[in-house]
Formats: sequence, structure tokens, C-alpha cells
Amino acid sequence: MYPKNTWYVAATPDEIDEKPLGRTICDEKIVFYRPAAGQVAALEDFCPHRGAALSLGQVCEGKLVCGYHGLAMGCDGKTISMPGQRVQGFPKIRSYPVVEKYGFIWVWPGDAQLADESKIHHLEWAVSGDWAYAGGLYHVACDYRLMIDNLMDLTHETYVHTTSIGQKEIDETPVATKSEGDHVVTSRFMNNVMPPPFWKANLRGNGLADDVPVDRWQVCHFHPPSHVMIEVGVAHAGKGGYDADAKDKVYSIVVDFLTPETETSMWYFWGMARNFNVKDKALTAQIKEGQAKVFAEDTVVLEEQQRNLLRHPTRKLLMLNIDAGGVQSRRIIDRMLAAERPSPVVA
Amino acid sequence: MYPKNTWYVAATPDEIDEKPLGRTICDEKIVFYRPAAGQVAALEDFCPHRGAALSLGQVCEGKLVCGYHGLAMGCDGKTISMPGQRVQGFPKIRSYPVVEKYGFIWVWPGDAQLADESKIHHLEWAVSGDWAYAGGLYHVACDYRLMIDNLMDLTHETYVHTTSIGQKEIDETPVATKSEGDHVVTSRFMNNVMPPPFWKANLRGNGLADDVPVDRWQVCHFHPPSHVMIEVGVAHAGKGGYDADAKDKVYSIVVDFLTPETETSMWYFWGMARNFNVKDKALTAQIKEGQAKVFAEDTVVLEEQQRNLLRHPTRKLLMLNIDAGGVQSRRIIDRMLAAERPSPVVA
Amino acid sequence: MYPKNTWYVAATPDEIDEKPLGRTICDEKIVFYRPAAGQVAALEDFCPHRGAALSLGQVCEGKLVCGYHGLAMGCDGKTISMPGQRVQGFPKIRSYPVVEKYGFIWVWPGDAQLADESKIHHLEWAVSGDWAYAGGLYHVACDYRLMIDNLMDLTHETYVHTTSIGQKEIDETPVATKSEGDHVVTSRFMNNVMPPPFWKANLRGNGLADDVPVDRWQVCHFHPPSHVMIEVGVAHAGKGGYDADAKDKVYSIVVDFLTPETETSMWYFWGMARNFNVKDKALTAQIKEGQAKVFAEDTVVLEEQQRNLLRHPTRKLLMLNIDAGGVQSRRIIDRMLAAERPSPVVA
Repeated sequence: MYPKNTWYVAATPDEIDEKPLGRTICDEKIVFYRPAAGQVAALEDFCPHRGAALSLGQVCEGKLVCGYHGLAMGCDGKTISMPGQRVQGFPKIRSYPVVEKYGFIWVWPGDAQLADESKIHHLEWAVSGDWAYAGGLYHVACDYRLMIDNLMDLTHETYVHTTSIGQKEIDETPVATKSEGDHVVTSRFMNNVMPPPFWKANLRGNGLADDVPVDRWQVCHFHPPSHVMIEVGVAHAGKGGYDADAKDKVYSIVVDFLTPETETSMWYFWGMARNFNVKDKALTAQIKEGQAKVFAEDTVVLEEQQRNLLRHPTRKLLMLNIDAGGVQSRRIIDRMLAAERPSPVVA
Repeated sequence: MYPKNTWYVAATPDEIDEKPLGRTICDEKIVFYRPAAGQVAALEDFCPHRGAALSLGQVCEGKLVCGYHGLAMGCDGKTISMPGQRVQGFPKIRSYPVVEKYGFIWVWPGDAQLADESKIHHLEWAVSGDWAYAGGLYHVACDYRLMIDNLMDLTHETYVHTTSIGQKEIDETPVATKSEGDHVVTSRFMNNVMPPPFWKANLRGNGLADDVPVDRWQVCHFHPPSHVMIEVGVAHAGKGGYDADAKDKVYSIVVDFLTPETETSMWYFWGMARNFNVKDKALTAQIKEGQAKVFAEDTVVLEEQQRNLLRHPTRKLLMLNIDAGGVQSRRIIDRMLAAERPSPVVA
Repeated sequence: MYPKNTWYVAATPDEIDEKPLGRTICDEKIVFYRPAAGQVAALEDFCPHRGAALSLGQVCEGKLVCGYHGLAMGCDGKTISMPGQRVQGFPKIRSYPVVEKYGFIWVWPGDAQLADESKIHHLEWAVSGDWAYAGGLYHVACDYRLMIDNLMDLTHETYVHTTSIGQKEIDETPVATKSEGDHVVTSRFMNNVMPPPFWKANLRGNGLADDVPVDRWQVCHFHPPSHVMIEVGVAHAGKGGYDADAKDKVYSIVVDFLTPETETSMWYFWGMARNFNVKDKALTAQIKEGQAKVFAEDTVVLEEQQRNLLRHPTRKLLMLNIDAGGVQSRRIIDRMLAAERPSPVVA
């Protein structure tokens, strides 16, 4: 169950720079390509001639040319030409609203009439020179909502990520959850704790002592349909924590775009934006490598969880205080789903 | 949907020389073996004792001996003996008409009463010393009829086989399709064009200049149930093209036996017969290697096409002039299928 | 179809020494773990909080701690604690009777009320210092009853294990089958035959001449639900065979615990216990390696047989005299299955 009248991250720009990309989003098999440098188009991945996958073709003078018989397709889903054929009567294929913004390719898999680029919420870290970003993509065999649960409750770090970001104090510290409109925030502040390995490395990466107590914070933001941005950081203890001076803290945003592929699989665009030492490319690479390992640990847990839920489809799960972030986020998704359902006809 | 009262290529002789071969043809799981040198038999791959696969057994003194408990099976599907057992009452298993001819093992998966070896159409290149042949086998996850479409319309060479046999002039040249009884012919003649890489190599292979314009032809022959023989060649331009003297041309027959495995998978016996330089084994090997690469390109396209068609089972495809060869071939198959259906009972 | 109110071998002790083990037995996904050294527990592999697999967690101070959010589970399926939570109202998960005995972990996947450790039948070779044992585990994609058939009729050795334990005399010698209560015995005695390679090696391993005729025996014992112990051995011919003095024979017990995973897959715990040269670890390793190869030959045959039976679900199989061991064993299983069915309600 996923809303379709919304923007999802579909790809990173490099994935379509060289050739078309076929990818299933919300059970729609879509081909993404660049009609020209800096442009992007998204079409049903189905040639109207004989059903070949257009994603196996190539872009030629702005047209997507089918790799089977050379049908040349336009960005609007109308066939432009085909060798030796009149194409006026060819059936149109579906085109999808698609935008390149903030370093990602975004697609709107639902009703194109409703697509509105301004609905993509602002990502300051993606446009400001004060930030460095790197990330990756995982295919995960689970409902994307299990990943929302996971990210809106970082209690799991203590257990899933024992050797990197987990620490005992996380689940000893209560979490606060609040909702404002379509924005859910889960926050946890741990004061005067020793930094775990990941943060030690980041402290060093920012030229700060790593062997002293810190104030640590995690502030998870859910935005529909399935984007979770997590402010994470540590400051030397007693310097103001979250509000400490830049010189006393290291601070990042964990970036998570969760895009449904099917009901039980998803594309996980993960990454991290930081605003310290932003020109240090070695540090960027090192953080990305570390994050890749940490986030792979989650996928193992979630895929097993998905299998368990499929095996016991009717069993009720618990909704504890730590689950409130996921629960409230799912409520927003449920509202979106309800809004997409056709109104019942009144007799 | 495939006719069953017909001959299909089931295997190449070398596949059964050493030991029995289990292979599914038209959804029938069959074991092929040699009761004696030069002979061939085909049985249901199911031991009447406990259902073991007879193809895991071995041939011993003309009998197919089950690899589980030693039941010895005859070519007619009757158990001959079993250690310590009386076998008279053992149920018979099905035997299939099977023939070795033209360098292939042919099987008739339908009603054995109707099998008639003379219905295998003559293959001159397979019996004449003037020809050399080599080929291979691919398993392809698509309806065999998608491969018929592919082979009866070579327009796709321009797009699928860009680096070997494709050239722009193919789809600039109109194709002619005609049907005579159960024989469909699609032909295309391209005059005064430069030979593509594959034909340059063949021209050199036959001692002809490869840097001059040629007249090129493609004549595709469909014979039921699913055999496509394609006459392909080039002659130095202006020497008579298809009808040029042997010394001025290189000429081959692309051999395609398409054997259904299931509704959505097939065995693709592909090869090439040539009548120039027939004793040059290095050339034979080189052509086979080149063809293997070219034909692998098709399988990628067709498997994706099959997935797309399964995803959209009711969507209508276009039938253009270039598709006429496939369309007319499928009509012949449809007639065969209709003939196999039991007559409706008239009240 | 498998009885559930019975003991099955679920694992070997080493599989749970380091960390919990998730394994499906009779379609129940179970986590096995050691609450303390020498203890064993078995629970539904499903965390009551959010459905995570408990088998991904770890044991901490006797509790199975979920690897997702730290819920601490007790051996009885009741949650003991969870960081920051009151757990009294948490739903209980299922616990399974489980025992470590005779070098194996045994589980009772059915009604726990009926579990009775004394129903595990005695295994002398597992407790006596006169015996050495080694074995392994295979996952086999077949109904466990096909493996019972296989083991209760060793005629197949001649055909499946031609290079190790098979020999022509096996199926030239009649087999005797008898049933006593829930115990089925199939026996075959071959006198004055040459030992096959496996037995030659064992004769040498016990310091006996290997190039002389032997009396060979195979006595297969079925015990419910699916345990087959096979007494196998050879004695120098004329020394008394099965009853010969220890100095004139080599004698082993082939150990087979067949545990259903699903209707069409199983866990095959195989091994061999011998009472000669029991301290020779190199011999133990060599026998295990040889047996691993021999038993892998069976899995190929049985997995193909299973595929054939699924393809022809209604076809009747033969039940010959050699099949009597399997047939009688299956009758015992059928009785157990009938006993587990709820009584029909009489109106």
C-alpha cells in the first residue's frame, strides 16, 4: 500500500547519464532517460509496437529509440517515427511527470494532472555549498513502511549497529514524538555519554577530541510519502549540545528516501550530508563506506521481518512509545491512501 | 500454445552419445537415449516403479536402466526386467516417435499414431558435401512465437545487432512477404551497400574483397511448426546479387529450430550452413563464435519482451508490414492448433 | 504430511553453541538457542514486538535478546523485559519442548502437553565409549518419506552408489521385511561376496584383509517418526557373518534422522557410528567424507523423483517386495497422522 500521487526518488542522475534505466516504482515499470543533457523523461517501459522494453534502447537526437525495431519515442509517450512506417495511429504510451532536483531524479507515478514540482520539500543541504553529501542505493525485499518504522525509532541502533553507532544510552533515554500536519518528529537527546566508534571517527574528522564525553542527539523527521531525514550529531559535553557552536560539534543529516518497488520490496536511497570539513573527499568516501555497512545491517533484519509478517499476516504487532514515530508516519500515509481512493458512488 | 502433432528438434546427437538426456519439450518431460549406436529412443522420463527420472540412469545392452533400482526399460515403454521382480504387470510408460535425421534428434510430442517421418522437410545443406554447418543451443525464457516474429523480420538487425550484421540500409529497404500453403517467405534485397562487419569477414573468408559495395539479400523461410531458414548473402555489387556466380558471392543459410519447452520458454537450436570454403574448420569455428554472440543479443531483448507481455496480457500489439512474416507464420500455427482441438460434439 | 506430536532431530549441538539458530521444522519457524551452557530452548522465531526474527538476536544472561529493539525473551515465550517498557501485557509466543540428547537437539513441534522425553528411543552407540560417530546435514528438496523409502530398501545401492557400496549381489539377494509394533526391519544377507570399495577401506581400517570374500549384511530399522538406523557390516566369509567375532568383522550403524522442513523439503541428518578403531580420528574423518559423497548421490535422485511426483500427482506408484520396508514404515506414519486428526463431531 503506497500512495501514487506523490513524488518519489526514482534514481540518481548518474544512473541515466549514459543510457536509459528501467526501474519499477510503485509497480509501474518505467524507463528513465535524458532526451538531452540536463533533461529527464520517464515513460512506460513498453514499446507500443511489440512490447519490447524501451529501456534496452538508446537515446538518439532527443528520442528514445527502441532497441528492437527502431521505433523513435517522444517524451510525451507519442511515437515520433519508425523506419518505413506511418506512426500517426500508434497508441500512446504513458509518460510520467519527472524532475531532476536536489541531486536526484524524482517521479510522480500517479495522476499526472496532479503533479506539482513545488510539492517536493526543500532540501537545504542539497543546494548549499556548506554541505557535502554522499550516498548509495540498496534494493530491499520489504514493505517500505518497515523501513519508515526502522528510521523513526533509532532504539534499534543499540542492537543492530552495535559496532558503529549503537550504544547502551540510546534505549535508556526516552524518545519524544510529535506531529505537525504532515511532519512527524522523533527526538532523543543523550547527555554526557561517550561517543560510539562512528562518532569518534567524525569528531577526529572535524579536528575534535574523541575521548571525552559528548552530548548526542537524534532528531528524525518524516515527510510524506516516505522520506526520513535524521539530524544526528555530538557536541563536547556541556557546550550546548544540539545548539552548540559549530566549533564544538559534529553534525550530519542522515538522508533516507524510501521508494516502493512493489508491495514487499523497495529502493533504499540512503546517504549522509554533513556541514563540517565539506571539501575533504577522503572523509566523504570514508563516511559513505561506513554508512553502507551500517545500513546493510538493517536490510538483513527488515527482510527477515518481512518474511515473518508474510508468514503471519493476521498477527497483531505491538505499538509501543518507541514505535510512535512509525505509527504517526503511517497515519499520514493512510490519509494519503484514503484520499486516492475513488469516492463511493451514492445512489 | 504449440501444436504437438508435429516434429520438433529435441537435441543434437552429441547430447545423447554418452548418456541419456532429460529434456522437456512441449511440457512433456522426455528422456532421450541411444539403445544402440546409431539408434535413438524417447520415453516419458518417469520410472513406473517409483517415479524416478530415467534420465539419471544409463543404457545397458540396449535397455534404459533406471538409476534408482535397476528397472530395465524398453524403447516401447514396456519394462523388460527388474532384479528379483516379475514385470509383466508393470504399467507401460509413454514412448515418443523419435528420429535422427539431418544431424538432429527429432521428436513428435503428440499422437504417435500420426507421426510420419516424411513430414520432416528436406534440408539439403544437411546432407550435401557442398555445405558446412555449425551451431549451438540456447535456452530462452520466451514463447517460441516471439522468436518466429524476430526471425521473420530482420529489421531488428539494425538495432539489436549494430556491431555485426546490422546496417542502416536494412530498414530503409522494404520487405516483401508471401505465403504459399504452409511456407511463408519474407525477402529483402539491398543493392549497392557497404557490407557490415560480419559480411566483411565472410567475404575475406571466401577470398573476396571486403571493401567494395555489395548487393545484400535476406530471404526468410518459415516452415511449420517453428523452423526458420534464412538465406543470407552478399555479392559484389552488380554481379547479379542473389543470382550471382558462386565466385562473386558469399552465401549462407541461417538455421533456426525453435522448440517450445513450456508456454513461456523454448530451446533455440541455432546455426549456420555455408557453401563456401566448407573445409576450413577454423572459419567454421569463427562463424559459430560470431553467431553465438549475435544470437545472444536477441535472447536479452526477447526475454524482456516476454516479461512485458506477461505484465500486460491483454494489451494489443501492432501488426505492421514488417511484422507480416510473423503474422502469417502464426496463422499457420493457429491452423495446426485448431486441427488438434477435439471436434465439438454436435447434439 | 508429517506427524507433529513426536520428536524430531532439529540440529546438532554445535549449530547453537555460538549463536541462536533459526530453522523451519514441520513448517514451524523456530529459533533454537542455549539460555546457558548445556541448556537448550526453542521458541517461535517471531518477536512479539514487531515480528523480527529472534534468531538474528543474541543470548544475554540467559535471555534471548531480539536483535532489533532489545526485547528480552524467556524460554517460556514470555517477554522478560524491554528497555523503557512495561512488558506484562506483551503477547506470549510459542515455546517448543526441546531436549539435547544422544548428541542431537530434539524438538517436539506439536502439542507441548504431550511431549515426553522418554519417547526418544535409546541410541546405544551415542552413549557408549565403544563407538565413534561422525555425520553431517543436508537440505534435500523432497518429502521426507521418499528418503524413508530410499533407506528401507538398499537395493538402490547397486545403481546409485556404484563406485562405493553398490554391488551386483545386493539386488540378487532377496530382502526380508517384518514389522513389530512401531518398528520395521528390512534385512538382507549376502554370503561369500567380494567387498565393494567402501568396505574394503573399512576392512583395512580395522586391520583385516580386504581381498577375500566376505559375508555382508544390511539390517534397516525404522523407528517413528522418521529415523532409520541401518546395521551394516562385513565379516570374512564363513566366520559367522552378522554374528561373527569382533576380530573377524567390521560393523557400523548408518544413522539417518529425517526431519520434515515443509511438505516437499527436509533436513537430512546423516552419519555413521562404528565400533572398531574408535579412537582413530583420521579414520572417522575419512568415513565421514566418503559417506558425504555417497549420500549426496541419493539427494540428486530423490529431488528429481520429487519433481516427477509433483508433475504427476495422481499417478500410482508400484509397491514391490523391495518397497515393503517403506510401505510398512509409511503405514506407521499414517497411523500417527490419523491419531493427530481431531475426532469428527458426532451430532
